[in-house]
Amino acid sequence: MASEHTAKAFDSDLQELTRLVAEMGGLAERMITESVDALVRRDVALGKRVVASDVEIDRLQHLIEERAVLTIARRQPMAIDLREIVGAMRVATDLERIGDLAKNMGKRVAALENDFQPLKLMRGLEHMTDLVQTQVKSVLDAYAAHDLPAAMAVWKGDEEVDAICTSLFRELLTYMMEDPRNISFCIHLMFCAKNIERIGDHATNIAETVFYMIEGQQMLDKRPKGDMTTFATTLPNS
Amino acid sequence: MASEHTAKAFDSDLQELTRLVAEMGGLAERMITESVDALVRRDVALGKRVVASDVEIDRLQHLIEERAVLTIARRQPMAIDLREIVGAMRVATDLERIGDLAKNMGKRVAALENDFQPLKLMRGLEHMTDLVQTQVKSVLDAYAAHDLPAAMAVWKGDEEVDAICTSLFRELLTYMMEDPRNISFCIHLMFCAKNIERIGDHATNIAETVFYMIEGQQMLDKRPKGDMTTFATTLPNS
Repeated sequence: MASEHTAKAFDSDLQELTRLVAEMGGLAERMITESVDALVRRDVALGKRVVASDVEIDRLQHLIEERAVLTIARRQPMAIDLREIVGAMRVATDLERIGDLAKNMGKRVAALENDFQPLKLMRGLEHMTDLVQTQVKSVLDAYAAHDLPAAMAVWKGDEEVDAICTSLFRELLTYMMEDPRNISFCIHLMFCAKNIERIGDHATNIAETVFYMIEGQQMLDKRPKGDMTTFATTLPNS
Repeated sequence: MASEHTAKAFDSDLQELTRLVAEMGGLAERMITESVDALVRRDVALGKRVVASDVEIDRLQHLIEERAVLTIARRQPMAIDLREIVGAMRVATDLERIGDLAKNMGKRVAALENDFQPLKLMRGLEHMTDLVQTQVKSVLDAYAAHDLPAAMAVWKGDEEVDAICTSLFRELLTYMMEDPRNISFCIHLMFCAKNIERIGDHATNIAETVFYMIEGQQMLDKRPKGDMTTFATTLPNS
């Protein structure tokens, strides 16, 4: 960037982008909490509020993308400055997906009609959500503070989330086999557990974006991921 | 863009981006076909090949993003030119997600161990895949040809995919209730059906990107979406 004027204009653009990402992050965090609260308490109205919030998160993503592109075109930033802008766009994409996943859980609240309410399962879901919520919060803090070690801690922590998800799946499967009347309820919870696990995946994506912004290259390491898809093979078939 | 030189350089950048998106689209289409073939034929090796292809689709997405950003910074395109570049980035994001969903199906092949192989279900899954595959192909053609009516036809066609998915879910639920030994198999198929439905959602996202590129604004209409999440409430609880 040639002049001091351009540099100042760029800084102000970047600040505004970072503020928008923080706003979007706050909204995503709230949607995660509220969607799981709605599930656990069977609060259909709260579920609907989560669904409604998704419009705002989509709006913010488009706004961030628009501003980011205008900043690149106007200020022609290079190196780290350019990566900051691309980073904001990438984080916004992940937050938008997190909003979608929370919205999907919010929608399911209305479908959970019967009285089956196994406390242990719900506690498991809440525990998993707390973990993922902490991951999302920590990685957004790491993004705002350009704190690479904190981002890498989130990246590594995802394994624990996957392990809890697998154990929750096993438990749900047991309930389903015990009594067919539990099946449709348990399927909804499975999709919810899977959604929460995927929210965790988006937290690790954001950690990878922090790495890219600071180090100037993509992370090549593959995450040590607990492979959930094989859960069924570890179970007896009857 | 000031000079004729810049305009030519921009055209050449855009052509290269479009070529990369087409390459990525071809790969995504192949991954969809192969993942479902692998499921239906229980071809674990093919499933693994799909999983391996995901690295290439991720690489292409990063490449497209990098080139797009460089083009914006160097050529400072405006209006329709700028939207073309943003459009390429957005389509690449959707294709990357499609690759992820196909990869997830590829992983599940190894988990389908038992001999339960209900022909009707598999035909349903294949039929749904054929529809979605056509949607993806059509929308990528519409993107390449800047054909808004064709893109809007894909956008509207997603309702049919959702309807088939709901009916497949109902059928899977029946199998699970009939015999608990079918449960884990059916859950894998449910997740696969859901993945295919979500691939259809990404095709409609791409249709919205075509709209944005051509019309210069976001689509405000909400898609008339068959609401799958309530499938359980429409079923008897025993």
